[in-house]
Amino acid sequence: MTRGKFTVAGGGPVGSLLAIVLARHGYKVDLFEGRPDSRVTDIYQGKSINIALSDRGWHSLQQIGIGPDAKEQAIPMTHRAIHDVDGSLSEIPYGKEGDAIWSVSRSGINQQLLDVAESEPNVQTFFEHRLVDVDFETAAAVFSVGGDKVTVEADYLFGADGASSKVRRLAHDLPRFSYSQTYMPQSYIELNIPANADGSHRLEKNALHIWPRKDFMLIALPNPDGTFTCTLFMNHSGDPSFESLQERADVERFFNDNFGDAMEHLEDPVDTFMAKTAAPLFLVQVFPWSFNNKVGLIGDAAHAIVPFYGQGMNCGFEDCAELNRLIEAHEHDWTKIFPAYESARKPNGDAIAELSKRNFVEMSDLSGDKRFQLQKKIEAKFHDAYPELWTPLYSMVTFSPEVPYSEALRVGDEQKAVMDRIMQLPDIENTWNEQIVMDQLYELATATFGERQ
Amino acid sequence: MTRGKFTVAGGGPVGSLLAIVLARHGYKVDLFEGRPDSRVTDIYQGKSINIALSDRGWHSLQQIGIGPDAKEQAIPMTHRAIHDVDGSLSEIPYGKEGDAIWSVSRSGINQQLLDVAESEPNVQTFFEHRLVDVDFETAAAVFSVGGDKVTVEADYLFGADGASSKVRRLAHDLPRFSYSQTYMPQSYIELNIPANADGSHRLEKNALHIWPRKDFMLIALPNPDGTFTCTLFMNHSGDPSFESLQERADVERFFNDNFGDAMEHLEDPVDTFMAKTAAPLFLVQVFPWSFNNKVGLIGDAAHAIVPFYGQGMNCGFEDCAELNRLIEAHEHDWTKIFPAYESARKPNGDAIAELSKRNFVEMSDLSGDKRFQLQKKIEAKFHDAYPELWTPLYSMVTFSPEVPYSEALRVGDEQKAVMDRIMQLPDIENTWNEQIVMDQLYELATATFGERQ
Repeated sequence: MTRGKFTVAGGGPVGSLLAIVLARHGYKVDLFEGRPDSRVTDIYQGKSINIALSDRGWHSLQQIGIGPDAKEQAIPMTHRAIHDVDGSLSEIPYGKEGDAIWSVSRSGINQQLLDVAESEPNVQTFFEHRLVDVDFETAAAVFSVGGDKVTVEADYLFGADGASSKVRRLAHDLPRFSYSQTYMPQSYIELNIPANADGSHRLEKNALHIWPRKDFMLIALPNPDGTFTCTLFMNHSGDPSFESLQERADVERFFNDNFGDAMEHLEDPVDTFMAKTAAPLFLVQVFPWSFNNKVGLIGDAAHAIVPFYGQGMNCGFEDCAELNRLIEAHEHDWTKIFPAYESARKPNGDAIAELSKRNFVEMSDLSGDKRFQLQKKIEAKFHDAYPELWTPLYSMVTFSPEVPYSEALRVGDEQKAVMDRIMQLPDIENTWNEQIVMDQLYELATATFGERQ
Repeated sequence: MTRGKFTVAGGGPVGSLLAIVLARHGYKVDLFEGRPDSRVTDIYQGKSINIALSDRGWHSLQQIGIGPDAKEQAIPMTHRAIHDVDGSLSEIPYGKEGDAIWSVSRSGINQQLLDVAESEPNVQTFFEHRLVDVDFETAAAVFSVGGDKVTVEADYLFGADGASSKVRRLAHDLPRFSYSQTYMPQSYIELNIPANADGSHRLEKNALHIWPRKDFMLIALPNPDGTFTCTLFMNHSGDPSFESLQERADVERFFNDNFGDAMEHLEDPVDTFMAKTAAPLFLVQVFPWSFNNKVGLIGDAAHAIVPFYGQGMNCGFEDCAELNRLIEAHEHDWTKIFPAYESARKPNGDAIAELSKRNFVEMSDLSGDKRFQLQKKIEAKFHDAYPELWTPLYSMVTFSPEVPYSEALRVGDEQKAVMDRIMQLPDIENTWNEQIVMDQLYELATATFGERQ
């Protein structure tokens, strides 16, 4: 028995996972992707920026019933490795012992999920089908295939077609559709650190490397093949910026002055910089996420965010897990599922957008700040002593799938007010490890959160 | 000598005024309007919502050299006339003695400005030319005329094509263009109060009438022909809302319960309500306002706001006055004028958007609130005593063209913090007129603003 038919536009990780969810609930799913099948062409044309998967993403995959295969190729990163401008290194753990975020290959996880989707008898995949139109009343869609136009009928349609979603852009003309697309001041380019001759990593493997330089930063994430994918984030205009650094000599000086210890590892950073056009970063916020209880938006199509919290795909996977729950809870009644889905997920999409924007400042500035590192240490110690009372914001977002993003944002703001007061204690640099600091923090925290957070 | 040629898309009040500004600076201007010429067809298809012109608008017109003709047909409104649910009336003056906002006919002022524009030898007007495309590199534009497409070359182009600007929507696809369109929860319909048989007004003429009912409100603005144009603002959905009020009996009860004293004046309110589709209200915020120093946005096309401060057209006229200044200051160098224009006006567009949003709450809720009326009285008294130290927010926005909207917003927030403390004084309802209140206010105000605001 089939429950009805879905068109899913977009065969990235979220579209593939959604197809699995729907198929396993008995729906017939046609999954359309505009690009060629990367498993066949061996050219992956998706976003190439490295992708971090955290407990939130794993948890969602588990709820949907996807096994731990994806974890095999993933590299755990237990801490930030901070590279100072003088070349000295320091570490800030991401969480407590055993906590890690995972560097995964976007193409790898995409291909794995596509394989699982195609193994579902109800799913059919179509590549090189570019969406050109959607009828928001009937869920019919028009795709361009080669030179031809094909109309695809369905009962429902989901746009899982990413940050520049065509489904979403077509919805701009619908009544009462609120939308915003906001560019960040920063743009980015990718650089590469090759592997050693023996295939090992040139920098510590189990870390996310950061060269925080306040207005700009370089980061590096490990790949299984021994390489690191590096990303340079910097202002689009101003000084220094991708616009201001045009002369080769200036670019060379910029790299040597700021990333001296990375220069022996980076592969042609100056040539790459000169040759590449920096890619923009933008946030998208819209509402509603569904139309006429026929068409929905999911993943980046509904909430494109910036990559500074490493949560983009995790958030999209949570969308899928939420739908998975709601299909059952509302017994396949999509007049209830769509509204429940968007009202559950919209506040969380907005919260992770805000958190990810703020985290640029944290990564690029505060990570290099000794007081900030001290604050992290105090928080971690307090969390160890009173885990019920205090989970640091980063851990709530990354390691606590049971805490919605929106709650993490709210509690994090309250924690910040408390920590601002702790950091103002006299001589905190030297007294931080004394019991009196823990006592003070306990007093402030219980006054704010009660006996339990 | 001609300085170059402009295409102005949109022949509303702002487009017409901009054409005048440019022509008077020596530019050739082609002014295009999609609708028919209302001076010929006698059918005005522009936004019909009543329009308020304030000192800010007059001041801008003056700076551009437009005479006081527009004021002839305008009706000064010196105060808000608040209609309580029991039919009792109260008054809140808009400013001090002699201050007024002006109810003007949008079609009237539009036609006047079109006449002035056409009297400029450099201006040519084209009606029923619907914009379909813009080349943002060359400022060439394509218009649809009847069934034909016409390409119009120019050195520069301005989109003065209103809240749903086609120029702006075409710009969505340009790199690094940030945009948002946000719907308010409220929608609106217009109603009418006819004139008395002798042509006089049925309600007090020199007032803006408000029936504030917290979640919704009715307002009425006087017209020169003795009628009032009324607008009912109410939530789109929820209870009560345009969506919930579907049954005739419910609509009748709604009007009788809430607007009892208006029922003898309103012309078929229930029939009109039943027949009309409520129009949505939305805000638009974008950046940049110019592209390649060739194409610009102005008026509602750059900053569509909600009508609750009566500042929409005033803000557009200020845009024109700013350009008027900048063309001279930068000696016709548009590589400087466009950037200076958008950086001067964007913060003010954002500020009046925020202020206009907030003013729904003030008009629909607080205007009916006795404490709010008392606060206004205290502020007015203090302003009389110390005009250098304190100008109420409403007066800054409406009667103080020398104060930018952005400064009004900032100062208004600081004033609010001060007044919150004054309103907490014990027994303020009875003591407000005593000298000690003025003294306290003086102390708080000087502590906040120094000796002079």
